[in-house]
Amino acid sequence: MSKRIINTTPLADGYRMPGEFEPQEEVFMMWPYRGDNWRDGAKPAQEQYANVAEAISRHTAVTMFVTAEQYENCRARLSDNIRVIEMSYNDAWCRDIGPTFLTDDNGNRRAVSWEFNAWGGLTDGLYFPWDKDNAAAEKICEITRTDYYRTDGFVLEGGSIHSDGEGTILTTEMCLLSKGRNPSMSKSEIENKLCEYLGAEKVIWLGDGIDPDETNGHIDDVACFVRPGEVCCIHTDDESNPFFSAAADAQKRLSQATDAKGRRLKIHRLCCTKNPIYMEGAETIDFSRGSAPRRNGDLCIASYANFLICNGAVIVPQYDDENDALALRQIGAMFPEYEIIGVRTREIVYGGGNVHCITQQMPKARQ
Amino acid sequence: MSKRIINTTPLADGYRMPGEFEPQEEVFMMWPYRGDNWRDGAKPAQEQYANVAEAISRHTAVTMFVTAEQYENCRARLSDNIRVIEMSYNDAWCRDIGPTFLTDDNGNRRAVSWEFNAWGGLTDGLYFPWDKDNAAAEKICEITRTDYYRTDGFVLEGGSIHSDGEGTILTTEMCLLSKGRNPSMSKSEIENKLCEYLGAEKVIWLGDGIDPDETNGHIDDVACFVRPGEVCCIHTDDESNPFFSAAADAQKRLSQATDAKGRRLKIHRLCCTKNPIYMEGAETIDFSRGSAPRRNGDLCIASYANFLICNGAVIVPQYDDENDALALRQIGAMFPEYEIIGVRTREIVYGGGNVHCITQQMPKARQ
Repeated sequence: MSKRIINTTPLADGYRMPGEFEPQEEVFMMWPYRGDNWRDGAKPAQEQYANVAEAISRHTAVTMFVTAEQYENCRARLSDNIRVIEMSYNDAWCRDIGPTFLTDDNGNRRAVSWEFNAWGGLTDGLYFPWDKDNAAAEKICEITRTDYYRTDGFVLEGGSIHSDGEGTILTTEMCLLSKGRNPSMSKSEIENKLCEYLGAEKVIWLGDGIDPDETNGHIDDVACFVRPGEVCCIHTDDESNPFFSAAADAQKRLSQATDAKGRRLKIHRLCCTKNPIYMEGAETIDFSRGSAPRRNGDLCIASYANFLICNGAVIVPQYDDENDALALRQIGAMFPEYEIIGVRTREIVYGGGNVHCITQQMPKARQ
Repeated sequence: MSKRIINTTPLADGYRMPGEFEPQEEVFMMWPYRGDNWRDGAKPAQEQYANVAEAISRHTAVTMFVTAEQYENCRARLSDNIRVIEMSYNDAWCRDIGPTFLTDDNGNRRAVSWEFNAWGGLTDGLYFPWDKDNAAAEKICEITRTDYYRTDGFVLEGGSIHSDGEGTILTTEMCLLSKGRNPSMSKSEIENKLCEYLGAEKVIWLGDGIDPDETNGHIDDVACFVRPGEVCCIHTDDESNPFFSAAADAQKRLSQATDAKGRRLKIHRLCCTKNPIYMEGAETIDFSRGSAPRRNGDLCIASYANFLICNGAVIVPQYDDENDALALRQIGAMFPEYEIIGVRTREIVYGGGNVHCITQQMPKARQ
């Protein structure tokens, strides 16, 4: 039904990772449950995941995976528009543990199953074990009957890459050159691996992301492609903003870059929250030896850039911050034909991610 | 994605249960695991389920559901031809807990989710609890994006009915009039319910099945439709055979019956095993307060009639009995254009079922 493809690569077979702005068939998510990451038994996070899912489902089909234990509750919390399927997984980050879907010029679809080690394995990973997360991508391939490539142990999460669909990959050095992922590989070896498995020709490297401790600086909190030749990048003029220097450096590098087609990039600036968001209520999170603790007062990674494009809509994080409306306007200007849907995600941010981190899109195929 | 249809019935909406001999899109199965029903930790049963799945998959797509705990093992034991998806369930009888799929004249597909109570609930059911089994049908509808009807508490298992696809349902009084299912309903009320939910006009009632203690006499060990107007029915001339009287009575009733189209039925006789099969090795089955015990020496329900028709093939139980080859020849004569595939299922019989009990076909739809 779905086959592991061996001895070849997506690049060799004519497959590429489409841009997120290309037509999608379905978006996958995973219902949060673990009490040692989410506040209050994950109940507030579940509510916000549900809201994200319902917003997406207005434009794109959504399948929510859920553990056997949470099946009934999850099914009851979502509308009939959303398909619910059981799956076991360690935590609920479909972007990072799901497959990266690829298409070819004939409208066929395949996928990549990356090695996942909880954002750093035994070096600086966030929980142990991560075995069920690492198996999730291939389960999704099987459910969707998608043939897939494995990467021979190459560690990567979907949140650390963006594609323009025309040969260019955007990523960060902080993450992809981190010690907890592929420490024996050189930068150019990693670049080759990205190009081979994403069907790309060029990698644009940003430097630091804005969450060194969690994902080691995933690109999806910093910048993304709006369409080929155009990027969105976080921006602040406030030097005291904790994301100031990463944002400034990202814009500088983007302004100097050219993409796989040789184009200079048009940069759309996207604001940061006016006020940084810090962890609160961490005392309701279960203690667990295998999980990195969350502490009140820790800086949360509340970026507006962690939005999801899904067919006619952009789903944008909102935090009850002064800049919420500005972010929606700026994103609306980047995507003039789209419905811009703001969804409150502060609770998801408390758990370490956001809209883009908890979703994984499957592009349309011919079939 | 899939919707519960309320305030209407399949009959009113123009849906019917196709004959098993009509084109199928997929067959569903569930991997056995519970140590309090299956011998030796269910390992021998898993091997025979796998063999059944592989045989079917030569002609029809197969999806095997499996619990989270058994996922890796199940995936490793099956070829890539078979799709594996996680699901929680109490025991592995997809015929009885899966949905009954329906089609209409335009090639649309829907399903019925019956109430399931482990073959008799607190009256004479076989295990407790059965909550996950009762939820399985709707999960399969959701995975396959099939709209479905619920039956308002009407208890039925898929193994207790056969359809000719042209308005006739075959069942047994022993099962459908049993005290543990719908004791407050009269025979004619039950008949109406079958007709409404299977899109039928006539019910042909046989009397007893051959397993009074397990399923209370499911039809699928006794008789089935080969094609409209033709049935297969078990037969033995050996009066000492434990199935003799049920088989004789079934043939008598079938010979006197007419179907929904007014046709007399052509009856194809199918042999029984030469020697009855009795339980062995029950001492390796776990003890559990909630499950009916199995005892060495108990009669097993080893019927050749519990075969599955799946597109170009008929999958037939084999027991290393003297009559195995005869059964294959007789079924081959009923289905001259089909590949007749014998599969050893003694271990499945030890657990209380057979090929038909562990499978559930989804007919082809237009989509």
